[in-house]
Amino acid sequence: MRPDPPSRGFPAAEFAARTQRAQALMAQAGLSGLLLTTEAEIRYFSGFHTLFWQSPTRPWFLFLPASGKPVAVIPEIGAPLMRQTWIEDIRTWPAPRPADDGLSLLHELLAPLAHAPIGVPKGHETQLRMPLADYERLLAGLPDLKIVDATPILRRLTMVKSSAEIEKIAHICTIGSNTFAELPEIAAEGMPFAELFRAFRRAALAQGADDIPYLVGGAGQGGYHDVISPPGERRLAPGDVIMLDTGATWDGYFCDFDRNFAIGRADDAARRAYDKLWQATEAGIQAARPGATCKEVFLAMHAVIGENGEQGGNVGRMGHGLGMRLTEWPSLAYFDETVIAQNMVLTLEPSLTYGDGRMMVHEENIVIRAAGAELLSVRAAPELPVINGRGP
Amino acid sequence: MRPDPPSRGFPAAEFAARTQRAQALMAQAGLSGLLLTTEAEIRYFSGFHTLFWQSPTRPWFLFLPASGKPVAVIPEIGAPLMRQTWIEDIRTWPAPRPADDGLSLLHELLAPLAHAPIGVPKGHETQLRMPLADYERLLAGLPDLKIVDATPILRRLTMVKSSAEIEKIAHICTIGSNTFAELPEIAAEGMPFAELFRAFRRAALAQGADDIPYLVGGAGQGGYHDVISPPGERRLAPGDVIMLDTGATWDGYFCDFDRNFAIGRADDAARRAYDKLWQATEAGIQAARPGATCKEVFLAMHAVIGENGEQGGNVGRMGHGLGMRLTEWPSLAYFDETVIAQNMVLTLEPSLTYGDGRMMVHEENIVIRAAGAELLSVRAAPELPVINGRGP
Repeated sequence: MRPDPPSRGFPAAEFAARTQRAQALMAQAGLSGLLLTTEAEIRYFSGFHTLFWQSPTRPWFLFLPASGKPVAVIPEIGAPLMRQTWIEDIRTWPAPRPADDGLSLLHELLAPLAHAPIGVPKGHETQLRMPLADYERLLAGLPDLKIVDATPILRRLTMVKSSAEIEKIAHICTIGSNTFAELPEIAAEGMPFAELFRAFRRAALAQGADDIPYLVGGAGQGGYHDVISPPGERRLAPGDVIMLDTGATWDGYFCDFDRNFAIGRADDAARRAYDKLWQATEAGIQAARPGATCKEVFLAMHAVIGENGEQGGNVGRMGHGLGMRLTEWPSLAYFDETVIAQNMVLTLEPSLTYGDGRMMVHEENIVIRAAGAELLSVRAAPELPVINGRGP
Repeated sequence: MRPDPPSRGFPAAEFAARTQRAQALMAQAGLSGLLLTTEAEIRYFSGFHTLFWQSPTRPWFLFLPASGKPVAVIPEIGAPLMRQTWIEDIRTWPAPRPADDGLSLLHELLAPLAHAPIGVPKGHETQLRMPLADYERLLAGLPDLKIVDATPILRRLTMVKSSAEIEKIAHICTIGSNTFAELPEIAAEGMPFAELFRAFRRAALAQGADDIPYLVGGAGQGGYHDVISPPGERRLAPGDVIMLDTGATWDGYFCDFDRNFAIGRADDAARRAYDKLWQATEAGIQAARPGATCKEVFLAMHAVIGENGEQGGNVGRMGHGLGMRLTEWPSLAYFDETVIAQNMVLTLEPSLTYGDGRMMVHEENIVIRAAGAELLSVRAAPELPVINGRGP
């Protein structure tokens, strides 16, 4: 029943290729290095993969020099795992050590590099994952060091996926689709919404997901009014329209799509909203091909639902990149002129409001091939599914 | 079978009390406000609770003025959920909008406050969750605004839990204990380690956990060498010593403890390591009482295992605070002189290395009462459990 998984991890050659592509872009930008602090950035170049990031206590650093392998500056507790990656230069300290949580090691590494700027991701969709006071202290101790924003480099690198990355995303999308296919057996009238979430998570794990870090949804008579709330104890009832949106993971890669369904019956307004979003998604699938811009794909979906004046304002975009993070560059949005390229993985996520403030959201996952979009999620049913709600 | 859950959420009075306590500390520090950007900080003062934070795309802000309710400056997609909280002043923008992701709203809010510093958490175990370039731009536009580190205020506030918070943590600890009790039925010889993780997650959900954001472990013949790796496809075998460490959640509060067991048989070295850690934990339970310092609790555990010279170096501490985050202030460590107070929730987490670099870690969760520590996790068995590995 479960799909055969691809192999876990990546060969060292993949990390070497990523590093060399980064170093070529760094050379163009005149950078002497790149300092990274977040889980996805560090995993991308090293393969260092752990849930230990859940603890906010310890900072972790990976430094990409102008040439050669990255250097890890990490808490000692991470050394055994880092030694299993392709990284050779691993510098550790017994963290937590608030008085010097990696700072003197970073100082030693960066002090000789003050001749040229180093890059730190500072732009849209990035964060600095270390105490701000430590960052300020590091810079104060290196008055000649110049920092520039490395966001464009990371953005350009990570938007296009390797075939091994696409295999992992495709695998978790299949697991997600198989899980959604079980919904008619899982969802039952009278079931608390929180219990439906638990049952969905259990089903996704049984289908082979490693984890379900993201599961949100909405439920309400004739439609839902909110798409980011945690589930409460409200019980599912006939006439409810329900949406579940999941970001499940396999080997550190996400799927991110949703499904809508009704229990027992659905009114015409909900059916019409569903139909419009299904058609908008279809327009997105047609438009998402190499050479189109993100804005054009946004406009293609917007044209289908645009007559509904209330739409779009509160979500801000109709899709985004997908991979090691639930949401990645680019954005399918009016402001994003990124040219879509082969091997990008994207979500198409049109939404609209209808009736008295009810919302609906559709979402599919695609990979861009030479000939156009290829679905990674099994396409949602063309009409709002109505399940009998008899449950398991 | 499942424990009865406490009620979800908190009454508005709890958020009002938290805000007033913060404002009293802000007044002492001469602050005109507090700017918060992370999930736990914003949820602590508002009750805003969503997994949407998994997406790194959008920044979120909560501002505590010197008096009155906090002000939310958030993406429009979050407004319906924020309106369900006690927050009244909710200012939104259609995020993502990279050119102005909340900055002009923040500018408007902060510009009148340049007469006194505002606080931003910048210290140990904090992060600034917004693009660094946006933070720098905000400050450049408010040249008179002074920023000071608000870490001491947040640390002091959140270390001591309310009775409603303790109920939630106790509940998820019970769920965790019940799940660990099922391990002998779940774990089986020949089972891939990743499959054991999946089965554990499914069991925790069935026991009533909302989510299992953290699950790490180790497995190996006679012991494990690493405690933060994700599980691979290696199959469990007789003679393996296995550790699972889980941070499961209920209503946004964590448990964080682990259990060790062996399959089929265990050698003397593993049994001795287990016994030493069990005794060290016992010493921690005795030492963790109001008036003791964190360092003293650390030393009490260290005295039991201290003769093993290799111990402690790579973990850096032997326990920590627990609550809305998997790890919180304080640290049971040599460097932390925090005085333990009633209603703190802590983990006791001694570890040691033995043999050829094998590690072992024990962990329990406690709440500090007037008379001393009260266990929230069901105490681990006093001898290393050996299970038959026949599985389900």
